[in-house]
Amino acid sequence: MASWGERLAGVRGVLLDISGVLYDGSEDGGMPIPGSVEAVARLKQSQLKVRFCTNESQKSRGDLVELLRRHGFDISESEVTAPAPAASLILKERGLRPHLLVQDGVRSEFDPIDTSNPNCVVIADAGESFSYQNMNKAFRVLMELESPVLISLGKGRYYKENSGLMLDVGAYMKALEYACGIEAEVVGKPSPEYFQSALKEMGVEAHEAIMIGDDIVGDIGGAQRCGMRALQVRTGKFRPSDERHPDVKADGYVDNLAEAVDLLLQHADK
Amino acid sequence: MASWGERLAGVRGVLLDISGVLYDGSEDGGMPIPGSVEAVARLKQSQLKVRFCTNESQKSRGDLVELLRRHGFDISESEVTAPAPAASLILKERGLRPHLLVQDGVRSEFDPIDTSNPNCVVIADAGESFSYQNMNKAFRVLMELESPVLISLGKGRYYKENSGLMLDVGAYMKALEYACGIEAEVVGKPSPEYFQSALKEMGVEAHEAIMIGDDIVGDIGGAQRCGMRALQVRTGKFRPSDERHPDVKADGYVDNLAEAVDLLLQHADK
Repeated sequence: MASWGERLAGVRGVLLDISGVLYDGSEDGGMPIPGSVEAVARLKQSQLKVRFCTNESQKSRGDLVELLRRHGFDISESEVTAPAPAASLILKERGLRPHLLVQDGVRSEFDPIDTSNPNCVVIADAGESFSYQNMNKAFRVLMELESPVLISLGKGRYYKENSGLMLDVGAYMKALEYACGIEAEVVGKPSPEYFQSALKEMGVEAHEAIMIGDDIVGDIGGAQRCGMRALQVRTGKFRPSDERHPDVKADGYVDNLAEAVDLLLQHADK
Repeated sequence: MASWGERLAGVRGVLLDISGVLYDGSEDGGMPIPGSVEAVARLKQSQLKVRFCTNESQKSRGDLVELLRRHGFDISESEVTAPAPAASLILKERGLRPHLLVQDGVRSEFDPIDTSNPNCVVIADAGESFSYQNMNKAFRVLMELESPVLISLGKGRYYKENSGLMLDVGAYMKALEYACGIEAEVVGKPSPEYFQSALKEMGVEAHEAIMIGDDIVGDIGGAQRCGMRALQVRTGKFRPSDERHPDVKADGYVDNLAEAVDLLLQHADK
């Protein structure tokens, strides 16, 4: 493999995944991954542009930022690309009235949207709210529509909390796709439109940007398909078999965000 | 289309789906579809061999037969091919110890099976038991196995109860397949092994048999792929669009089981 100098040459912007890179989530708020608070601070003091690009869809962007600030991270709402506000914009533009299968924590992102007489379904990482009854309700709404529209906030397979691996929204998206014979529209990683909106907000071209994430498919594969480079951290949901993934090869594997930032500050934008 | 006489010539055995053909299920036991009790009785008085071939996996075979007998149907346990007893045999043969994600009503079918220290997961139509917690438990069991085995009792998309359409086990099978990156083994329709075991139990060759069901894919498509003929009834989960299905065309569409039996008694085995 090429040297780090070659692999990181010309990088001007860094996209950071949040869960599994900055902190490990859990019901009681989780905890920062060692070294990540300082790593974000050093990155923001550098010449590199930084943007946070998450698939977090249990919390509103405001609540997520507040939690991260309590953990000591230097982060503000305007620096975060998150799927719920992105979906809210899309619903408004297209005149869609969603039936929401989401957790209460993220519902406020949809406050400006008319949800009466629904003509589409939006699902997010709903955790315990993925009851049979709630899934069946979403299924019935879709089956009653002539042209069913299902919008999924991300399509992750699973994520890691302190208690262990947790099923993510992608599994439930697949369940509804199969039951209704339809294909969902994904708002969130690895959708190219979503990465591109984050790049635009950061003002950096794809070939000058690097994604740092713990998800070999959603973060690494998704970013590379958009022409970006991508590093996988060995934290969060990382599993050793990711380094032998049949389809996706990261531009580098690092132990954690701190190591990624060390390498970037040494080699990027040279 | 050929005449009924040509389409039904040489039929010696009839496979009957249960839910949506004999009766419409519901939590309080459901109700027979008008004419079906008499239709089964007439069929059993004829020269034709009859077998019931169901994907019912919420109830044990004994409980299902008891319910149908209360509704007036002439049916005994030995005439029913059901996925839970079939799976129980497979588990025993292969030395598999299942983690069961099933409803309590069907658990007795697995009484003879060791469920300690599970090395596979079995899912059935679990209804309300498809909670996030139960799904996540099954997911974690699979992710801890080196070669994960997921056995699904059927792969139906949905079925119909009096209250409306209900998500079936297939949707949850797809969720676990996607989350774990695996493919489930299906025990039940439309698995060819399952149809073939029903034919064997009836003592009839595929080309002499006809399936009567309400599921265009699971019943009609599945039976035809095994070399059988198949009629779809316009009861149960039937939807008018089934008659324009892009891939599957039934050998005939009838309003209900009573009409199917009228035609069979007039034209079969001639």
